[in-house]
Amino acid sequence: MKFYDCETAPSPRRARIFMAEKGLDIPIQQVALRHDEQLTPAFQAINPWCTVPVLELDDGTRISEAIAVCSYLEAAYPEPPLMGVDAADKGIVMMWEHRFEQDGFFAAAEALRNRTPGLKGRAITGPANYPQIPELAERGSARLEHFFRRLDEALEGKEFVAGPRYTIADITALVSVDFAGWLKLTIPDDCAHARRWYEAVSARPSAKA
Amino acid sequence: MKFYDCETAPSPRRARIFMAEKGLDIPIQQVALRHDEQLTPAFQAINPWCTVPVLELDDGTRISEAIAVCSYLEAAYPEPPLMGVDAADKGIVMMWEHRFEQDGFFAAAEALRNRTPGLKGRAITGPANYPQIPELAERGSARLEHFFRRLDEALEGKEFVAGPRYTIADITALVSVDFAGWLKLTIPDDCAHARRWYEAVSARPSAKA
Repeated sequence: MKFYDCETAPSPRRARIFMAEKGLDIPIQQVALRHDEQLTPAFQAINPWCTVPVLELDDGTRISEAIAVCSYLEAAYPEPPLMGVDAADKGIVMMWEHRFEQDGFFAAAEALRNRTPGLKGRAITGPANYPQIPELAERGSARLEHFFRRLDEALEGKEFVAGPRYTIADITALVSVDFAGWLKLTIPDDCAHARRWYEAVSARPSAKA
Repeated sequence: MKFYDCETAPSPRRARIFMAEKGLDIPIQQVALRHDEQLTPAFQAINPWCTVPVLELDDGTRISEAIAVCSYLEAAYPEPPLMGVDAADKGIVMMWEHRFEQDGFFAAAEALRNRTPGLKGRAITGPANYPQIPELAERGSARLEHFFRRLDEALEGKEFVAGPRYTIADITALVSVDFAGWLKLTIPDDCAHARRWYEAVSARPSAKA
């Protein structure tokens, strides 16, 4: 197997933390996003959506999208389970993962990609160019404030986002909080549940991935 | 079980088609989105994200987000499999589902919610109000044009989006195409693969769900 990565990018970090929690050590190939390597014909042949992560299996099958890479790994390496242990739990984990991808991860991407001078014309990942929209940068920041509050509510009386076990929903939320940090937005002081959780998940060895 | 639905809305239709393919007949409760029932305190107690679908299990557990409802149902009712049959297939199916959710479904939502007069201030679903951004309406339509092309490429030499079997990726793509139809955007004439596929998946009994 081979894992197409970019060590500074938040999206592949979701898969890297997932692999670290599974104890997997998969050979990594760096893709230089800051030099637009993802837009080259060579990389477009690997992933026409021009994104990392991409997991290449030994038979040449390539899987892109963080949630898809994790879905493969969960099925191929079930222990420890990170996407739920029974039907209801699988549904609950996916619910939180998807909510926080939208409220947190996509909001941070919206805020960042629509304001960073170096990303002019690159407001959305992928092969097509879309201009920055300044109101979207504002909106992304506003959405992140809501995300912190929702994360705090989700963690009231629970150790982890989806219940008693660490799951992919914690990974997506953690990476989203750190992504928001690029914009100097942090969990508010009065969000005690989210702050307690953030300290705990950040202290796991996998968080360094 | 109980399925909180809105028969005219595209998001719960994703889960309805999935249930129809599984042969499931789950009691339905309609939520009147056009009267903002999803924003009432009563519905916020059911789903704080103010969206349908929501699947309520017999023990009272509530699962929202279409992909999460489907993940629960796939685990609880495995036949026929709609989310992949082995690890690689599960990854591939999730990859296409997630790509087309972004390129198709979210693009159509962006185009529609940012231009419809009745959705002023409701550019994003959920409890918070966000103003419409006219450039986003334009961008959503442009993204849908790309979506049709990508769908066509994906279907070259394949019966279904993720390979030889009908899966959740076909459901998300089908619902996205029909959602784009609300904006009078349709698969271009020269996208023969996508048109052949659209005709076939629309003719399945589940498409009426």
